[in-house]
Amino acid sequence: MSTQVDLLLIGGIVVSMNDAFTVFPDGAIAIQDDSIVAVGPADSLFNSYTASETLDCTGQVILPGLVNAHTHIPMSLLRGLNDDLRLDVWLGYLMPLEREFVTPEFVRLGTRVACAEMIRSGITSFADMYYFESDIAEEIATIGMRALLGQTLLVFPAPDAPTYEDSIILCRRFIEKWHGHPLIQPAVAPHAWYTATPELLRACADLARAYNVPIHTHVSETALEVSNCREQNHRPVVPWIEKHGLLEAKLLAAHCVHLDKGEMFSLKKAGAGVAHCPTSNLKLASGFAKVAEMLDTGLNVGVGTDGPASNNDLDMFEEMRLAALLAKTVSNDPTVLPARQALEMATIGGAKAIHQDHLTGSLEVGKRADLIVVDMEGIHNQPQFHNNPDAVYSRLIYAAKSSDVRHVLCNGRFLMRDQQLLTIDEARAKADAAQVAAQIDAFVREREASPYNKLVLLAGVTRQESFEVQVKVPIADTAPILAVLESNQLEITKQSHYKQYDQYFFFAGNDPDAARLRYREDEFINEKGEVFHARSRLTLIGEENRQAFGKAIMLSRSRFLANADRSLRFYREYFSPATEVEVVKDRLRWRVIYRDTDFAINLDHLTQPNLADYYLEVKARTWSRSDAERKANLIRELLQLFGVDPETAEPQDYPELALK
Amino acid sequence: MSTQVDLLLIGGIVVSMNDAFTVFPDGAIAIQDDSIVAVGPADSLFNSYTASETLDCTGQVILPGLVNAHTHIPMSLLRGLNDDLRLDVWLGYLMPLEREFVTPEFVRLGTRVACAEMIRSGITSFADMYYFESDIAEEIATIGMRALLGQTLLVFPAPDAPTYEDSIILCRRFIEKWHGHPLIQPAVAPHAWYTATPELLRACADLARAYNVPIHTHVSETALEVSNCREQNHRPVVPWIEKHGLLEAKLLAAHCVHLDKGEMFSLKKAGAGVAHCPTSNLKLASGFAKVAEMLDTGLNVGVGTDGPASNNDLDMFEEMRLAALLAKTVSNDPTVLPARQALEMATIGGAKAIHQDHLTGSLEVGKRADLIVVDMEGIHNQPQFHNNPDAVYSRLIYAAKSSDVRHVLCNGRFLMRDQQLLTIDEARAKADAAQVAAQIDAFVREREASPYNKLVLLAGVTRQESFEVQVKVPIADTAPILAVLESNQLEITKQSHYKQYDQYFFFAGNDPDAARLRYREDEFINEKGEVFHARSRLTLIGEENRQAFGKAIMLSRSRFLANADRSLRFYREYFSPATEVEVVKDRLRWRVIYRDTDFAINLDHLTQPNLADYYLEVKARTWSRSDAERKANLIRELLQLFGVDPETAEPQDYPELALK
Repeated sequence: MSTQVDLLLIGGIVVSMNDAFTVFPDGAIAIQDDSIVAVGPADSLFNSYTASETLDCTGQVILPGLVNAHTHIPMSLLRGLNDDLRLDVWLGYLMPLEREFVTPEFVRLGTRVACAEMIRSGITSFADMYYFESDIAEEIATIGMRALLGQTLLVFPAPDAPTYEDSIILCRRFIEKWHGHPLIQPAVAPHAWYTATPELLRACADLARAYNVPIHTHVSETALEVSNCREQNHRPVVPWIEKHGLLEAKLLAAHCVHLDKGEMFSLKKAGAGVAHCPTSNLKLASGFAKVAEMLDTGLNVGVGTDGPASNNDLDMFEEMRLAALLAKTVSNDPTVLPARQALEMATIGGAKAIHQDHLTGSLEVGKRADLIVVDMEGIHNQPQFHNNPDAVYSRLIYAAKSSDVRHVLCNGRFLMRDQQLLTIDEARAKADAAQVAAQIDAFVREREASPYNKLVLLAGVTRQESFEVQVKVPIADTAPILAVLESNQLEITKQSHYKQYDQYFFFAGNDPDAARLRYREDEFINEKGEVFHARSRLTLIGEENRQAFGKAIMLSRSRFLANADRSLRFYREYFSPATEVEVVKDRLRWRVIYRDTDFAINLDHLTQPNLADYYLEVKARTWSRSDAERKANLIRELLQLFGVDPETAEPQDYPELALK
Repeated sequence: MSTQVDLLLIGGIVVSMNDAFTVFPDGAIAIQDDSIVAVGPADSLFNSYTASETLDCTGQVILPGLVNAHTHIPMSLLRGLNDDLRLDVWLGYLMPLEREFVTPEFVRLGTRVACAEMIRSGITSFADMYYFESDIAEEIATIGMRALLGQTLLVFPAPDAPTYEDSIILCRRFIEKWHGHPLIQPAVAPHAWYTATPELLRACADLARAYNVPIHTHVSETALEVSNCREQNHRPVVPWIEKHGLLEAKLLAAHCVHLDKGEMFSLKKAGAGVAHCPTSNLKLASGFAKVAEMLDTGLNVGVGTDGPASNNDLDMFEEMRLAALLAKTVSNDPTVLPARQALEMATIGGAKAIHQDHLTGSLEVGKRADLIVVDMEGIHNQPQFHNNPDAVYSRLIYAAKSSDVRHVLCNGRFLMRDQQLLTIDEARAKADAAQVAAQIDAFVREREASPYNKLVLLAGVTRQESFEVQVKVPIADTAPILAVLESNQLEITKQSHYKQYDQYFFFAGNDPDAARLRYREDEFINEKGEVFHARSRLTLIGEENRQAFGKAIMLSRSRFLANADRSLRFYREYFSPATEVEVVKDRLRWRVIYRDTDFAINLDHLTQPNLADYYLEVKARTWSRSDAERKANLIRELLQLFGVDPETAEPQDYPELALK
C-alpha cells in the first residue's frame, strides 16, 4: 500500500549531495509537511507514495537549496551606489549613509528585495549580519527562508545602537525572541576584531555561549587587517579572537582570505565554518583565499555572496562557479575544486559552515525540504553528455545560470514556482526600493561637497573613540602641577613637548559629522628646546553632544582622523570653510596611568590667542558610555590630587576662547 | 521635415561607447538599412525622424553589441564533456574526439548552437578559430552575426587537412571566397607557435599579408609554453612569432597571460589586439593575465569566452564581469578596471582588438547597427541610483546577466526580439546536438579503456611528427658503412651507442591511434662499453599508412610519446595487451646532416630475435608530406653513398621480423 504525502517531485536528475554523493538520474523526492520523507528512483517512489500534489521535473535537476554563507542583505538597497573605489573611501561613503538611512523600515524593505533575488537564484538558506536583525527576522519568517541572522556589534555608534553597550542588550533581546524558531537561528555578530575592543569580543563570546548560538564575524579579509593585528596584538587574527573566546562558540568566520596553516587548524579544531566570498574579495582587491588548502585541512568552507554593496548581486550560481574557477589558478592546478566539490561548498558544505547542516544542505530523509529545481534546457547547457556521472555537476557549476532556477521550496513550502515568487510582492518591493534610492540620490547629491565626503575622498578616514571626557582649568602657577607629576603619585608612561599650530575650519552645512575640521601641525621639541620632528594631521569633528559630570565634560561626537600631506593653503581652498580660527600653543603632555586607567594631562600655554594663563587639561577617550562615566569620576579625583578647584574649570574649547 | 528611416529605438538609456563615452539618459537611435544614422536624445530624434518601425526601450539600456574576442564556437558540441582535468589530459581526450567527429556538418551544427547562445548573451561580433571555417562562415552569414573567422593551421593532421600543406591551400581558398563579405572577415589562424614549424608561421604571415587579412593565434597562454619557447627558441613568444612575420599582419593574440613589458610594447607597436579570456585562464589554471598593465601600455584588449569546452559557456556578461573583478585583485587595487572600462573592453575595445572597429563596437553615426537592448528591471538590478553618471556601467557589469538581454540587432537586422531568436531554429539545433552528444557518449564509452585514453590519463602524451621515411637493409659486413661514416662525406652531429630493450604491446581494439605500444628501455653505453645512463619511454604507435618511394618507405601514422616511470609489469597489467613481442638490440646511432637535411643512421644488431645480420636503417621524420617525399629521394642517394643495394631492403619492422 502506498503512503500518502503532501508533495512528490518526480522525474529529472536528483542530486542529493549526501555523504555518498548519490545521484538518481531519473529520481523523485517525497515531502510531508516541512520534511523530506523519501529520496530515490522515480519508479520506486511513484509506487510507494501517493501525493496530494505531484510536480513533473523531467529534463530538470533537483538539488538542495543553495546556502549563501555570508551576506548583509539589507545592503541590497545600496547596490551599485559606490563601485570601483578604494576600500577606505568606499567605507567612508557608506558609513554616514547607513547612519542616515538604516532604520527598521529600511532593513525590512532591503530584506524583501534581497530575498526576492536570492530565491530567484536558488538560495534557500543564508547567513546575514546587519543591524535591526529582529526586524529582518520577522520579514524572513514571513517570506519563509531559512537564515542564520547575526545582530551586529561594534564599538562605533551603529544605526540601531548609540553605544556598544546598547548593542549587547539589543543582541540579547534578539536571541531571546528568536531562539528555537523553525527558520531563524539568531547569532551574535561582532563585526570584526578591529571594530571591537577585547571587552566587546569577550562579551560576544559570553553571550553566544550562554545561549548556545553561533557567532558570525569577519576574519582576515585583507592583508592590511592581518598586519595591523600582528602589529597591535602581536599575533594573527584567529589567535587574537581565540584569546577573547570567539572560538569557544560555534563560529562562522567570513572571508578568511589571509589565514596561515596554524589558523586553519585552530578553526578546524574549534569546529568553525568559513564563508568564502570570491566576488567580494576580488572586487575589493582583498586577495585570493587559499580555499583548496582550507578544504584540505578539513575545514567546513561555504560560499557567500557578501553584501550586495560589494558584489553587486546575490547570485550563488556566479559565486560557486567563481569559487571553482579561481581555486584552480590560485593552486596552479586545474584539477583543484572540481565541479562536484564546488556544489558541495554551496550546499551541504555551506550548511555545515553556518551550523545548520542538521536541517538543510542535502536531500536526505529527515531533513527539511529545502530544495530547488533547475531547468537544464537552455541552449547554454546543450548538449548534455552522460558517459561521466559527474557531468551533471559540470553543467550546474560551469554552464547553468541563476535564471535557470524554476522552482524553490524551503521548509516544505514553495517560495517560487515557475519563476513566480509566492511570498514576496516583488513589484511593490521594487517600487519601494526606487523611492529609497531617490532619497539616497538626493542625500548624496546634497552631501557631495560636504567636508566629510571631501575628506574621505582625499585621504580616507580613521574613526576615533566617540566619547571624550575632559576638564580644562586655567592655572596661574604651574609649579604645584609639575610637582605632582614629578612625584610618584602617578605612573607616567610618556612625556612630550610640542608646539601646536591649529587652524580650525568651521562649516555652515548640515553634515552632523562635519561641524569643524582641525588642521594641526605638531612640532616636537626636545630637551634642548629644538624642533626634532614635525607632523600634520586633519581631524574632522562632528557635532557635540555635551554632558557635564561635575565640572568634567563628557562629549559624545564623531571624530575622524586623517594624515595631512598637503599645505594649509590647499586645504583652505579644498574645503572652503565658512569661518576660520587659529590657535597656537605650547603644550607639555604626559600620558599617565591612574587607577589602571590611561589619561592625558596637558599643560598648555596659548600664544594665539595670547592668554596670560596656563591651562591644565585632563582627558580620556573611550567607546563606552559607562566607561566614560567612570573616567569622569576619576578626573574629579585627579583634579583633587593636583590641588585644583574644579569650580574654576573652563567649559569652552580653545577655538571658542579664541573667538571671544 | 523629418527624415524617413527603417527603425527607431527610443527611450531607455543609450550607452554609446564613443570616444567621449556619451550616455543619453533618455536616448534614441535611428537605423537605416545596415547602419546607424543618428544617436541622441529621444525627443530630438523623435522630432527629426519618421520610422517605419519604432521600438520602445523605456526602462532598458541600449548599448553596442558585445564583441567576443576569442572563441572556438563549434566546440559548443563538446561542452562539459571533460572538465577539471590537467591540460595535457584534457587535450589528450579532445584531440581524437575532434578527429573522429569534426566534419562540415559538425561545425555547422556547433555554430548554430553557439550562435544561439551568443545572441542570447548579447554578442553580435566574435573572433573564431576552428576547422572548416568556410562552412562556419556560411552558417554565420545565414544567422547574420559579424565574425572574424580564422581557418586553423597546425603541423598535426587536422580534421579538415591531413597535412599542413593542405591547410594552407584550404586557408587560401577560404580567404578568397569570403574576403569582402559584409559580415565575415576571413583570417589566417596558426593555432600557436608550438603547434607550428617556423616555415608554417612564415607561410601564415605571407598569406595574411598577401590578402591583407588578420592573423588569429594563441600567444603565451601558459607559463610552460613561455618557458618552452625560451628554451627552444631562446626568446619569449612574441619575439619568436615576430621573427617569423606574424606581427607584420593585423594580429589578434589570444590569451597573452604571460607577456613581459617588452612583448606588450612590441604588440602595441604592431597594432595587435589582445583577447583576454579570464574564465578559460582560470579554469585551465593558465594564470592571471596582467590586463591592467596591458591596458596601461595602450594595447587594444578585448574580452573573449574562449571555446565552450574550456569555459563552459559563451556568456560575455560573465566574462566582462570577471575581467573587471579579477584585474582588481591581480593589481591589488580596487580602482583598477572600473565598470566603464570593462564594458569598453567588451565593446569598442574588443572591436579594435579584432580589427573590426571601423564597423562595430560603438553606437556612432555611420557604423553598422550592431546593438543590444538590455532589460534593467530584474530584481537583481534594483534599486537604481542616478547621482553618479557611471552607475549605468556598474549596473551592466556587476549586476546585469545575459538573461536580461531582450533584443539583439546585427547589421541592422533583428537576430533576437523579446528573447525570441529569429534566425536560428533553436529547438532543432538542440535536438540535433543531443544526437551528436549521444554518438560522442557511445564513442567515449567504447574508447574508455582504449590504450590511447589510458596513456593520456596516466602520463599525458606528446605528439610526434606524423610522417616517417625509412629504409632498413640487412648488412653482412658493417665495415664499408663505418668507413663512409668515418669519411668526411657526411656531417655527423651526434653519435651514440645503446642497448635497447623493447617490449611491444599489440592491441585488438579499433582505436586508430593505438595499434601498438612500445615500452623501451635505452641503456646508454660509453666508449669503455659501460652503461652510464638509462631511460624508459612509451611510444604509442597508430595504424600505418604505407607508401613506397623506391625501396624507402614513407609511413604516415600517429606517434605519441610519454615518459615511462613505472615498471614493465605495471604497464602490462594496466594496458592488458592482446599479444606481446620482445625485441632486444645493440644500436650504434649517428645523427647526420646530408644536403642540409637531418637523418638518423642506425646500425642495429638484434639479439632477440637472434638474427645473424646487422641492419642499416636510415630514417627521417617530418610534419610535411612534400618534405617526406624529398627526404625519401635523399635516402636513395644515401644508400648509394653507403654502397648498399636498395633492392635488398627489408620492408618489415623489427617486431614483425621477430614474429616470423
